[in-house]
Amino acid sequence: MLTGRSPSAPSSDRVRPDVAVVGAGPIGLAIAWRCALRGLRVVVHDPAPGSGASAVAAGMLSPVAEAYFGERQLTELLLASAARWPAFAAELTETTGIDIGYRTEGTLLVGLTGDDLAEARRLWAYQQGLGLPVTPLRPSELRDREPALAPRVRGGAIAPTDHQVDPRLLVPALRAAARRAGAVLVAQSVRRLSEVDAEVTVVAAGCGAAALTGLPVRPVKGQILRLRAPDGVAPGFRHVIRGYADGEPIYLVPRVDGEVVLGATVEERSDTTVTVGAVQRLLRAGIDLLPELAEYDLVEAVAGLRPGTPDNTPIVGPLPDRPNVLAATGHHRHGIVLTPITADLIADLVLGGVPDPLLTPLRADRFDLAGVAVGGPEPTMEGDRWS
Amino acid sequence: MLTGRSPSAPSSDRVRPDVAVVGAGPIGLAIAWRCALRGLRVVVHDPAPGSGASAVAAGMLSPVAEAYFGERQLTELLLASAARWPAFAAELTETTGIDIGYRTEGTLLVGLTGDDLAEARRLWAYQQGLGLPVTPLRPSELRDREPALAPRVRGGAIAPTDHQVDPRLLVPALRAAARRAGAVLVAQSVRRLSEVDAEVTVVAAGCGAAALTGLPVRPVKGQILRLRAPDGVAPGFRHVIRGYADGEPIYLVPRVDGEVVLGATVEERSDTTVTVGAVQRLLRAGIDLLPELAEYDLVEAVAGLRPGTPDNTPIVGPLPDRPNVLAATGHHRHGIVLTPITADLIADLVLGGVPDPLLTPLRADRFDLAGVAVGGPEPTMEGDRWS
Repeated sequence: MLTGRSPSAPSSDRVRPDVAVVGAGPIGLAIAWRCALRGLRVVVHDPAPGSGASAVAAGMLSPVAEAYFGERQLTELLLASAARWPAFAAELTETTGIDIGYRTEGTLLVGLTGDDLAEARRLWAYQQGLGLPVTPLRPSELRDREPALAPRVRGGAIAPTDHQVDPRLLVPALRAAARRAGAVLVAQSVRRLSEVDAEVTVVAAGCGAAALTGLPVRPVKGQILRLRAPDGVAPGFRHVIRGYADGEPIYLVPRVDGEVVLGATVEERSDTTVTVGAVQRLLRAGIDLLPELAEYDLVEAVAGLRPGTPDNTPIVGPLPDRPNVLAATGHHRHGIVLTPITADLIADLVLGGVPDPLLTPLRADRFDLAGVAVGGPEPTMEGDRWS
Repeated sequence: MLTGRSPSAPSSDRVRPDVAVVGAGPIGLAIAWRCALRGLRVVVHDPAPGSGASAVAAGMLSPVAEAYFGERQLTELLLASAARWPAFAAELTETTGIDIGYRTEGTLLVGLTGDDLAEARRLWAYQQGLGLPVTPLRPSELRDREPALAPRVRGGAIAPTDHQVDPRLLVPALRAAARRAGAVLVAQSVRRLSEVDAEVTVVAAGCGAAALTGLPVRPVKGQILRLRAPDGVAPGFRHVIRGYADGEPIYLVPRVDGEVVLGATVEERSDTTVTVGAVQRLLRAGIDLLPELAEYDLVEAVAGLRPGTPDNTPIVGPLPDRPNVLAATGHHRHGIVLTPITADLIADLVLGGVPDPLLTPLRADRFDLAGVAVGGPEPTMEGDRWS
């Protein structure tokens, strides 16, 4: 669409931006960074950067553990983006000096009961069938890797290439990188796309994309807990631990600073209340897998809204009949892992390159968009609802 | 000690107060109110009124349910104070116009399992032996009173005279009443009693009394949760519910506005962290007794510090060899129910009346006070530790 110009070209507030990004979560900020690095004049609109789903997200980079039945195309996308993460993380930290908590110890997959293990094994077999690196471990091997696991845990596996990053560090790093590359953040909400004046508008507003574009993006509630190891020490385990505990699917993500993220519910609801039943089940499952968690501090219980689509695969690409409005939303549970590839794909699109074949299953027009407002009065979006 | 004067007597900032109260929790404020009503010039010192144990307390007025083996004298005191609550609450609300959430539906006592019920019945038999109003109920009677109770609940009883009040409404009401009666609040911390200039000093500083006086008052940690019925309606139960659920002793206190207080741990610790294990056990026990709680919002998880004494009975009366310094502390789990009687007993002492026989078991000199600093350098107290 556009050709890059030198990042050192003179700019002025009065010059029309090349790219306006609506939404300063990880995806919007990474898009801004990538576009600015290519010499485009970029403005990002968000009254509260990083206050959406990413503020709640655990930050697992788990294309292998999240390779589910019937999601083959999504799995390919997750794998392709995860493969870009090491370089993306290194470049981001090198550029900004900010540690984003990128850790590569890998992910342990566990089953508490015999039933849990049977369920997990069915999934591991599918993942191995795709050629993915999932290696079952004997119980003794599992405990050699994580002695803190409950003795009751019946079995497990390791996905060594499933890593993690801390989304609450990622956002300030991406802000710094985007700013350094020349992108400008405007701390205001966008209620209608007509308020935005740019050659290309990118809607990276998470659940807020629905009101701005009419795309079928719905909120998928997730309740998540943050614990902290007592006495300021690191948690007593190093791997991300995912598993089933009496049928409850949970994950535990240890941070170097002592934080442990314990999540998460997946609920077809749009409220952000924290409920007694969900917290109780998450805590119970966590303690069942790792008994030492009972002694941890419970420091945060919060709910966020993931942007889901009808097929729970993102929407990345132009709106139908509006080639200068690009969507980058609907990342559902995968926004963090998909940040690098989404940013690159959008930057390629903006610069008019050949569309990557990965974009094909992400096209907006795969849905019946009869309800999408492309000509009539545009839907509005409140500033506090959209990122 | 002092004789009252007319509340309309002229006062001035330069006049030495008759009574300085250190601590503006319910007990300190009630003392200030009662003393001011009797014509005394009263100053209350607290940088953060109502920020101590009362901010966390559930507000049960339960002398019957809390009549435990071996605490006969404490039980008499609790009963005597609870008997004063109806008039105290009425006077307070009439004076201030503030509703303090005083509710008289009574308390249901329940046991989830057969073992829980056996444990409960042993206690009820003791309480009945004291002549206290505890009436066992058949399961059908229990469910007639609270249909929301889990079908698994094996049995219960009712203590109709065990009531409740909301401590977070009580404190502002007492502040208003004390102010209206002429008491003055000084929003500053007291680090040493020598900073206070008054005829009589009353130390109602909760756990902070230890540092101020050397009395053997220790913090007893309690973790407590606040839930809220969804959709802004009142909880689906009206009684205070206390019971055992798989050995876990808990209580549930419903408020008219939809709040439910679920508590509480009793821990010999002085930190105020909220821990995973405690929250999980409280939630589990709550859901087991009242399944609908699973759908409630979890709005607060907090820990407070109760002021305990070696025999867990309060200390009310003069310090040894310091007749003009009165302690009113060590109320442990009973600060709210004991507020009226503590205030009256202290006001009587200040005005030099005949000591009530109820004060005998509350004397400070029942403990070995070798460590109490009465002459040497006084211990200090930080403003953020003491109320």
